[in-house]
Amino acid sequence: MTGRLTILGLGPGAAGLIAPDAQAAVDGATDVLGYAPYVARIPARPGLTLHPTDNREELDRARHAIALAQGGAQVAVVSSGDPGVFAMAAAVFEALEDISPADHPDIAVIPGITAMLAAAARCGAPLGHDFCAINLSDNLKSAETIRHRIRHAALGGFAMGFYNPRSKARPDGFARALEVLRETCEPGRIVIFARAVTTPDESITVTTLAHARDDMADMRTVVLIGNPQTRRVGKWVYTPRFASEGT
Amino acid sequence: MTGRLTILGLGPGAAGLIAPDAQAAVDGATDVLGYAPYVARIPARPGLTLHPTDNREELDRARHAIALAQGGAQVAVVSSGDPGVFAMAAAVFEALEDISPADHPDIAVIPGITAMLAAAARCGAPLGHDFCAINLSDNLKSAETIRHRIRHAALGGFAMGFYNPRSKARPDGFARALEVLRETCEPGRIVIFARAVTTPDESITVTTLAHARDDMADMRTVVLIGNPQTRRVGKWVYTPRFASEGT
Repeated sequence: MTGRLTILGLGPGAAGLIAPDAQAAVDGATDVLGYAPYVARIPARPGLTLHPTDNREELDRARHAIALAQGGAQVAVVSSGDPGVFAMAAAVFEALEDISPADHPDIAVIPGITAMLAAAARCGAPLGHDFCAINLSDNLKSAETIRHRIRHAALGGFAMGFYNPRSKARPDGFARALEVLRETCEPGRIVIFARAVTTPDESITVTTLAHARDDMADMRTVVLIGNPQTRRVGKWVYTPRFASEGT
Repeated sequence: MTGRLTILGLGPGAAGLIAPDAQAAVDGATDVLGYAPYVARIPARPGLTLHPTDNREELDRARHAIALAQGGAQVAVVSSGDPGVFAMAAAVFEALEDISPADHPDIAVIPGITAMLAAAARCGAPLGHDFCAINLSDNLKSAETIRHRIRHAALGGFAMGFYNPRSKARPDGFARALEVLRETCEPGRIVIFARAVTTPDESITVTTLAHARDDMADMRTVVLIGNPQTRRVGKWVYTPRFASEGT
């Protein structure tokens, strides 16, 4: 049997937000690889080997997945959300650089519902106009690059979604982001902390830049920043479809 | 029976990319409203009224959906992709502004797989690092605002996804975007034209900014622009997880 490597996203957490194509790839897999909390979402069954690993091991995990597929296995590499958004797909293609294209296994990427969009849906439509997605982790880029990107996103009038805002290993990422936002945005700018969206642990806090504190975010939080027009209506938050000049 | 308004995304086109929660909302609806080509994806059945409308009528459609839900209907407002990304969710919340919060119907937003991420998955992982989503339609914002946003996205080193790059009514949007990109990005920058992704009409063209022409895009195309590090490996395109300084 020809091996195959499917890179897929399990969505933000709820079973009802996993795409059928992603579920089918999991159901047909002989091997599932991923960060341990995501692999834990896959039920054990005969014929399936689960390979949970730590979250700093993306490239090793990608190489392992490629080798298994080259050996004939039906391999599923799982991420939460969408595999192409700060997740495993880029790591797999990076690992492919070391292999002659003639030896690349069959690969498919199945998209998923990324955390930022799931968080937005729970609040209304805060990303209803042009927006950016920014990973605040400084594992693979400098703090200055992150500041530079947030500054341009703010000057461009974009709404923003911040992934990996803060963790025990990187406690300062979101505090630095708040500094840049306070230099570039008005105090009333809407800020949403969306934690563990669509899971039983979900909590959502809607506040403003003036009241946002860095300890409102943790590693399970996606932070959404409105654009200058983002507003509340009843219990909802949305960004209008139109834009004022200059924003 | 209490009315309910569910705003949902049907994903990019393939049946296997519709979230089960979105499918369930369609299956339980008494009324489905949306732009005609999206409503055409919903099979007719007894007890279901389909309300296809034109694509310039978002706000009227939103008001109609709210009124039906207030009257006790189980209403599904459908978009393609994700309803919160350049789609119906923002229009529904805009329409709610005219109604006292006490009279708002029950509302839920179900996220979906947006076209940009589906397109990325078909090519590899071109949005594997920080990225922006920009609607090139100038129906609701000025051409200068669009230029301003593309310029900041480029200066910030973001990859980009362009929605609604070009249509018969707006033939110049993508040509203007190319002008800004040529002022701000190197000629070798990777540009992807992803048309009708995950449908039988799918076509994907990977080229560079030097070779991109505005007539490569139409109203069914999402255009992805790589960041300065975006590269090819075999038949795939990906953006590395790390960033060089200053980009």
